[in-house]
Amino acid sequence: MTRPLSVALAGLGTVGSGVLSLLRDNADVVRARAGRPVVVTAVSARTRTRERSAALAGLRWFDDPLALAADPAVDVVVEVIGGSEGIARELVEAALGHGKPVVTANKALIAVHGAALAAAAERQHAQLAFEAAVAGGIPVIKALREGLAGNRIARVAGILNGTCNYILTAMREERREFADVLAEAQRLGYAEADPTVDIEGVDAAHKLAILAALAFGRPVAFSDVHIEGIRRVSQLDIAFAGELGYRIKLLGIAERADGGISARVHPAMVPAAAPLARVDGVTNAVVAEGDFVGRVVLEGAGAGAGPTASAIVADLIDLARGRLTPVWGAAADALTPLPAVPILAHDGCYYLRLMVVDRPGVIADVTAVLRDLGVSLESMLQRGRAPGEAVPVVMVTHETREEAMRAALARIAALEAVLEEPVLIRIELA
Amino acid sequence: MTRPLSVALAGLGTVGSGVLSLLRDNADVVRARAGRPVVVTAVSARTRTRERSAALAGLRWFDDPLALAADPAVDVVVEVIGGSEGIARELVEAALGHGKPVVTANKALIAVHGAALAAAAERQHAQLAFEAAVAGGIPVIKALREGLAGNRIARVAGILNGTCNYILTAMREERREFADVLAEAQRLGYAEADPTVDIEGVDAAHKLAILAALAFGRPVAFSDVHIEGIRRVSQLDIAFAGELGYRIKLLGIAERADGGISARVHPAMVPAAAPLARVDGVTNAVVAEGDFVGRVVLEGAGAGAGPTASAIVADLIDLARGRLTPVWGAAADALTPLPAVPILAHDGCYYLRLMVVDRPGVIADVTAVLRDLGVSLESMLQRGRAPGEAVPVVMVTHETREEAMRAALARIAALEAVLEEPVLIRIELA
Repeated sequence: MTRPLSVALAGLGTVGSGVLSLLRDNADVVRARAGRPVVVTAVSARTRTRERSAALAGLRWFDDPLALAADPAVDVVVEVIGGSEGIARELVEAALGHGKPVVTANKALIAVHGAALAAAAERQHAQLAFEAAVAGGIPVIKALREGLAGNRIARVAGILNGTCNYILTAMREERREFADVLAEAQRLGYAEADPTVDIEGVDAAHKLAILAALAFGRPVAFSDVHIEGIRRVSQLDIAFAGELGYRIKLLGIAERADGGISARVHPAMVPAAAPLARVDGVTNAVVAEGDFVGRVVLEGAGAGAGPTASAIVADLIDLARGRLTPVWGAAADALTPLPAVPILAHDGCYYLRLMVVDRPGVIADVTAVLRDLGVSLESMLQRGRAPGEAVPVVMVTHETREEAMRAALARIAALEAVLEEPVLIRIELA
Repeated sequence: MTRPLSVALAGLGTVGSGVLSLLRDNADVVRARAGRPVVVTAVSARTRTRERSAALAGLRWFDDPLALAADPAVDVVVEVIGGSEGIARELVEAALGHGKPVVTANKALIAVHGAALAAAAERQHAQLAFEAAVAGGIPVIKALREGLAGNRIARVAGILNGTCNYILTAMREERREFADVLAEAQRLGYAEADPTVDIEGVDAAHKLAILAALAFGRPVAFSDVHIEGIRRVSQLDIAFAGELGYRIKLLGIAERADGGISARVHPAMVPAAAPLARVDGVTNAVVAEGDFVGRVVLEGAGAGAGPTASAIVADLIDLARGRLTPVWGAAADALTPLPAVPILAHDGCYYLRLMVVDRPGVIADVTAVLRDLGVSLESMLQRGRAPGEAVPVVMVTHETREEAMRAALARIAALEAVLEEPVLIRIELA
């Protein structure tokens, strides 16, 4: 029998414990698929609590995770500490520096420092694997980097944050407001005590930056991603979306446009029959469109101990089998640094919702602004009459450049009869 | 630069031409992802027609495909001839015999002879790859064998035949009968002139046998698959399915049951909200349930030149990169030959539809038979009254063993008031 793959585990939170459980519960399955045993031999975490002692019996304990990187008895370091800076980053750099392969679930680290880490991995001929960083247990990294590798990808889009999708689903199904659902999600453990990174779209943007790099064979560029969160999505707009045949989802989208790549995370109106519209609750899904394969959809649990451990162990099995792939699917010198297309150059249809005083002439003023800026309307919806009071007006545009849309919006917001900040939501057809 | 991977292509039908196109159109993408050029250098097909001459300029032509297997200038043989016997089988055996890797789209060959071919591949240390054999361009082989490799899979189910799904979708949406839709599908090219292999479920069973072997880490066993086609699905049953909240799909299902594996292809009632119920037209989809990852769904085009070429080229890129995996995910001695569970031992809920004479006492007779055999009913539906004439009666059972269900069915069919052969459709919950 071949020598076991000796794994050092840095981090013993939910995900780290999940990896320990999987490698113990499914040792026979993993051994058959990896062609050799895959065993955790060393661990490091912040605190060595008593409850852990049973689970950790027989494992070497390291107070300093960096020591794992240098340990000659360690074949691969699994980093599940998290965070784009600090000890997680130091550990991954140190391990790669020693030529040791790394498996990580750390989307922030890969999104922000992935280009430099990939260079280090290539220099040292050490694998850097991160299937668990995007969409939990769904093998989407493998699908893009290997399964669809023969395709020129035109677009990749996904529901990449379970917390946001849970909140938007509950808002729609239970007709409740954002703040109310968020508070409940926090109580139930679907949202963090500080939900900013999820709610503001940053977590989804980390994942999208990774998908975009893989899909288009270019170095990862997190700072190129345009990011908007879901805090401003209201019950009113969700209801209008339903009337118009759409659902509101927080999407991450990366697509070829104008000779570059447009990468953006924002709430979007999606036709109710589109694959991503039907993905509810904490489920994640990714749609990839390739020139030969057509459209492929992958769906599953995007987070949690089990799914994340599943992805990490898949990476470990690849390592054990010697199945190696460059970080971004191609060697650094074969990547093409396509330029980023700024959000102002986005072309698409828009949903625009205003609160206006219900009096003659208001719609004429609004539509005159749109006409002057070359924005043409596909439809308009006005519900309820309340002379002299505030009423919502909804407009859906034909394809428009975002720059024109924003200029129109600024002028419309300045109209005296327009009472609140107008709401603008991009429409995505798939 | 590394030496190109020299590919011999056996078969120049739709799929073979698709592979040629992809490797030419996307040569840059493939080269970056493969780390070296991947080029077709030799071809073989039945006839060397004039239209092909441009596309084949510069390629070595072989009248005898078997010569490709022995040619020292060929690194890998792509077999897209098809068929489980004859020249396709001989070619794959010969190539593996020469220690040459093989990429094939041939589901029948892999399902029927996969165990022996895997043994030959292992003996000769030659890769045998067949991503294109199941679900076209959807990377489902890679997902099961690598992406979900850490999981104990409980169940894999899928819509594996686009022709059948197209027919069932059209029957439901356009309220037409099977024969009518089949004739149209043949005119449109969605069904073969001889549609038997698709319609009777054999093609889906080939694919299911492959998925079952991968999911459960056991040698492929096509003869263990229970097969029923869609010929007997009627408009009436599709309409009743809709009323009951189901859709009728031809599913391939492999699951752990009673210490063995139940593998079956048959029309099934699926709840309308289940992922597989929403997959319409020629689209394929596969659901895999793993103990750590939970439920993962993959969806996309299941056939056609582009998607199939995408899968074949993914296999070629794996080969070019040296990413090797045993045929069934584990070496032969690490496979576990789980016993097949016969269909008579299947436990599930059933939809039963009878045509009975509308007169007093008939329902009492039918339900007495069910009671005597321990089959309990969840619901019953009787539509329309026509005293003395034939009316449909629909029953849905609680969980029942198939053996009891069939015994009941035989007795019910023998009742004088039961006018046609009863229809029995299994209900699947996902």
